[in-house]
Amino acid sequence: MTVRVSEVEPIAGRVAYLGPAGTFSEAALRSLPLAPDVEAVPSVTVVAALDAVRSGDVDAALVPFENSVEGAVTSTLDELAAGDPLQIIAEVVLPIRFALLGRAGLALDDVTTVASHPHAQPQCRRWLAKNIPDAAWVAATSNAQAARLARAGEVDTALAGSFAARRYGLAVLAEDVQDVDGAETRFVVVSRPGAPAPPSGHDRTTVVLLERDDHPGSLMEMLTEFAVRGVNLTRMESRPTGTGLGRYCFSIDCEGHIESHRVGEALSALRRVCADVRFLGSYPRADGKEPAIPPATSDSDFADAADWLARVRRGLA
Amino acid sequence: MTVRVSEVEPIAGRVAYLGPAGTFSEAALRSLPLAPDVEAVPSVTVVAALDAVRSGDVDAALVPFENSVEGAVTSTLDELAAGDPLQIIAEVVLPIRFALLGRAGLALDDVTTVASHPHAQPQCRRWLAKNIPDAAWVAATSNAQAARLARAGEVDTALAGSFAARRYGLAVLAEDVQDVDGAETRFVVVSRPGAPAPPSGHDRTTVVLLERDDHPGSLMEMLTEFAVRGVNLTRMESRPTGTGLGRYCFSIDCEGHIESHRVGEALSALRRVCADVRFLGSYPRADGKEPAIPPATSDSDFADAADWLARVRRGLA
Amino acid sequence: MTVRVSEVEPIAGRVAYLGPAGTFSEAALRSLPLAPDVEAVPSVTVVAALDAVRSGDVDAALVPFENSVEGAVTSTLDELAAGDPLQIIAEVVLPIRFALLGRAGLALDDVTTVASHPHAQPQCRRWLAKNIPDAAWVAATSNAQAARLARAGEVDTALAGSFAARRYGLAVLAEDVQDVDGAETRFVVVSRPGAPAPPSGHDRTTVVLLERDDHPGSLMEMLTEFAVRGVNLTRMESRPTGTGLGRYCFSIDCEGHIESHRVGEALSALRRVCADVRFLGSYPRADGKEPAIPPATSDSDFADAADWLARVRRGLA
Amino acid sequence: MTVRVSEVEPIAGRVAYLGPAGTFSEAALRSLPLAPDVEAVPSVTVVAALDAVRSGDVDAALVPFENSVEGAVTSTLDELAAGDPLQIIAEVVLPIRFALLGRAGLALDDVTTVASHPHAQPQCRRWLAKNIPDAAWVAATSNAQAARLARAGEVDTALAGSFAARRYGLAVLAEDVQDVDGAETRFVVVSRPGAPAPPSGHDRTTVVLLERDDHPGSLMEMLTEFAVRGVNLTRMESRPTGTGLGRYCFSIDCEGHIESHRVGEALSALRRVCADVRFLGSYPRADGKEPAIPPATSDSDFADAADWLARVRRGLA
Repeated sequence: MTVRVSEVEPIAGRVAYLGPAGTFSEAALRSLPLAPDVEAVPSVTVVAALDAVRSGDVDAALVPFENSVEGAVTSTLDELAAGDPLQIIAEVVLPIRFALLGRAGLALDDVTTVASHPHAQPQCRRWLAKNIPDAAWVAATSNAQAARLARAGEVDTALAGSFAARRYGLAVLAEDVQDVDGAETRFVVVSRPGAPAPPSGHDRTTVVLLERDDHPGSLMEMLTEFAVRGVNLTRMESRPTGTGLGRYCFSIDCEGHIESHRVGEALSALRRVCADVRFLGSYPRADGKEPAIPPATSDSDFADAADWLARVRRGLA
Repeated sequence: MTVRVSEVEPIAGRVAYLGPAGTFSEAALRSLPLAPDVEAVPSVTVVAALDAVRSGDVDAALVPFENSVEGAVTSTLDELAAGDPLQIIAEVVLPIRFALLGRAGLALDDVTTVASHPHAQPQCRRWLAKNIPDAAWVAATSNAQAARLARAGEVDTALAGSFAARRYGLAVLAEDVQDVDGAETRFVVVSRPGAPAPPSGHDRTTVVLLERDDHPGSLMEMLTEFAVRGVNLTRMESRPTGTGLGRYCFSIDCEGHIESHRVGEALSALRRVCADVRFLGSYPRADGKEPAIPPATSDSDFADAADWLARVRRGLA
Repeated sequence: MTVRVSEVEPIAGRVAYLGPAGTFSEAALRSLPLAPDVEAVPSVTVVAALDAVRSGDVDAALVPFENSVEGAVTSTLDELAAGDPLQIIAEVVLPIRFALLGRAGLALDDVTTVASHPHAQPQCRRWLAKNIPDAAWVAATSNAQAARLARAGEVDTALAGSFAARRYGLAVLAEDVQDVDGAETRFVVVSRPGAPAPPSGHDRTTVVLLERDDHPGSLMEMLTEFAVRGVNLTRMESRPTGTGLGRYCFSIDCEGHIESHRVGEALSALRRVCADVRFLGSYPRADGKEPAIPPATSDSDFADAADWLARVRRGLA
Repeated sequence: MTVRVSEVEPIAGRVAYLGPAGTFSEAALRSLPLAPDVEAVPSVTVVAALDAVRSGDVDAALVPFENSVEGAVTSTLDELAAGDPLQIIAEVVLPIRFALLGRAGLALDDVTTVASHPHAQPQCRRWLAKNIPDAAWVAATSNAQAARLARAGEVDTALAGSFAARRYGLAVLAEDVQDVDGAETRFVVVSRPGAPAPPSGHDRTTVVLLERDDHPGSLMEMLTEFAVRGVNLTRMESRPTGTGLGRYCFSIDCEGHIESHRVGEALSALRRVCADVRFLGSYPRADGKEPAIPPATSDSDFADAADWLARVRRGLA
């Protein structure tokens, strides 16, 4: 399990991340190609980070998007789906390994409290139950803040990346306390909207689809627009629209770049059949995996067919 | 039941039809808007009529396409699907009513033979079995030729349109001898390929689709390309490709005109997924029925979506 | 190209075939496993042969079903789709090779007439056009009757199987006059309805589906019922219902036996969604080909799932 | 907006809920038909409540399932999808209205801290930003615990239902501080597995589907199994399987009861095509809405078709 990042141009300017320093978000940001003069700016929440992009206070923001154990980071999904449009330009996939941090010499048997972000606790639930069953959990707004609480003596220990120990003057009491090895978090780098970078050959496209009305089968209709053009989905989340139970929008990742005929025509079709389509970007996949291109769906297949249609319409075929 | 014809410009020049004079084909041709100088040219077979168009000997040909009782006229389907391309420019739907023609005064009890085209006999089978059960059937290449045989005394009677009686000097021994009332034959007018006439608002498009390979589900894939764009089919025939049992091509009529986005994109998609698509024309329906246009599939829906896609690709949406 | 026949028990009793003696139908019948006492009974038409089964006059009938060049034998399809139910119990696939028969010594240059069944003429069209371009075609009710006409001197020549020459005292003037080599006709053996023979492991099932109403997409719905259960279609013909242009029923062959869960559930579903389903038999394929069984559609998959459902419904899963 | 509950038999015995007293969960539980001797048992987490059912410590548990603003309660989804099976027997839909609670007389301008469950904070974000922009948010494990913190003076205020004020000796400083009116949370009552209650005529069925493998289109295949049998989905969530990004299972609600043919056959089909299907219950909808039953999918349609199939298989149709 290693860190994987989109092959993109170095990111420059001011870049917000879900801080404070010492979070996985900061580790993710540091793994990206960064311009020499990049300025990392910690944000207290995902919302604050994204709003800072919108307001122009920063040039980009790195925020968590989904975790292989906890699922979607719903605040990120919901913030990207609403408000002024933003665009994903890169992604980072970071292995998530937790350590238990505390003051040097503290024995596990003496731990009475453990702080962490609410997402971290369930990922270590079994380890905690087995090793420090009597320790009370204390919610923190980030794992780094949990470390800070431990440093301040407000709690005994914190769940955080081991890289946070040094910064907060703590010791690693236990490594790899996560219940499931191989957990990963995918982060996205978001900027203000613009023309997407040219296709890299291994891109992903993210969109939000809003059903025209909640008629039975509308989800299947949406999926069919992808399938009929041979476009694979890599993620599909339903999210409430906030207008009542049973009303959803869909956050979707698909293989390929909006510049390609197959993805472009699929999105154009969705624009027709959905109440709204929000384009959230085409960007290089962190894993560099090329899209599957089923027979008859390559760009040249589409171009040849369009030529044929033009000729037939003019009576030249 | 009345004759219905496409609203088209008067047909001019030399026009072949499945002759001889006195056939339903001639009656269909006469029902079309014809230029004053049109010259009707009888052909002995569908093949001869279509080849005369191909060779330039005639400007157009009217041939039977399908019958509401007997089904597709397979020789027409197969000839249009192969050889040099031709294009349908109009259609005629003619009620089919048969009369028993013979010499004046002949009693039904005395009839020993009845001639007709092989398509006519099954349409009158029950009437024949009931009224002249002992009469032997004699195949003729057309109903008009059957009338000619009756006139020549080679057979007693002929099944033909009552309009053929006068031309062949025969009497109508019985009217409406068809078993099923309401039978209709649809004829098409075919010319050499060219740009289709502009959309009339109530057009039909005819194509022939050849499967890329005989993989299970290929027919469903083809139908899905129409369905996902809201294009209704009005006729679907499978025809052997001649390369072995189990290998078919599909002759299809759909609602709408190739100039429309919905039909154009569907055909373009089929061009990708099929081994071959032969466009056989977009032309006004004889019944003047407008296509159903499901939500999100109008031309303006397609145009708006294409505009949106162009804007998004440039970062302007 | 060899004759292929269903592996079935010997056919016994009186069996009608499309006569007279010397037709391809008779050749097909002779290729079947026949009981010693079988009595072959020529019929003048497909309808007569099938009605003889219905009336009990014969025990079975062999009739042509489809040809790899000419397509479906529509009279067979339509007769099986209507009237008292019948059931297909076996099939024969016969290579179709035509010879030109005439009196010994007749030179091709001297041929002025050629008789044949209307289905035979188009299969030899190009040969005729090249070798005896001036010969007039004369329709006959069968190729054997054409041979009889040639024998009687009413025509010069007949198109028929070379095996008919000896019986009618004619010479083979030219062998293999068909335009396309490899043409085959598939014949079916039909009896009165009964429980189908047990599955052979390589069966075919034939049904006729009548749309509930002519709503757009009904054909796709029907095909989906097969596809979702992994049942491949091997033939699909639309036929007019006789109630007006644009109203069709569908004659369908699929892989597998009605006793299998996958085929049975598909037919049961079609029974729900169609206005009518006519079962025309499950019988061994002449080519012995086993059905493709996609993952999760075997009989044991269905049985396991049914068991699971029963347990879950009782709270035992 | 009123509370809606499943019409079920009174719930008896010990019933866990997400405590402490004063939570929306307790309010939901109190709205159900309860046996006189029911004993409400607060649990500190969803996991604890569900494990108490599994262990037999309680007879049932009421836990939050989804919220119209925040979406799925992922801990509930994930806990129901794994571990020993449990079964949903009822649901409650509760309008969610938040109040700001604090000591009587506290002015908004003086509020420096506000505690709440992490789900509550985002639902009141805009109100908080406008009215107490400088107040720091403090995470609590429940809104009731937040109230307790406020009571203890550890924070100034808490977000909770106004019904919690009295219990914790606090005043309602502001009513209806949620950003979106009309928010609702759906709770489910869960027991150990057993035969579901008989159909009420307005049931919902909940299942978890695990893809057999991550092949493109597997989600569409699953949805097709519902669609082809006319079963509407009312909720569809993807959840990570924990085995890596891009691997999901699907938590689904559909209309109808597993006893019905349409739902039963759909689930049975899914059992074939999925790696696993976990049945989570058929139970009366809180809103009493009857399922849409498209043509040809009623129980009598299925029964008639099954009868037909049985007859045809025996040769009796």
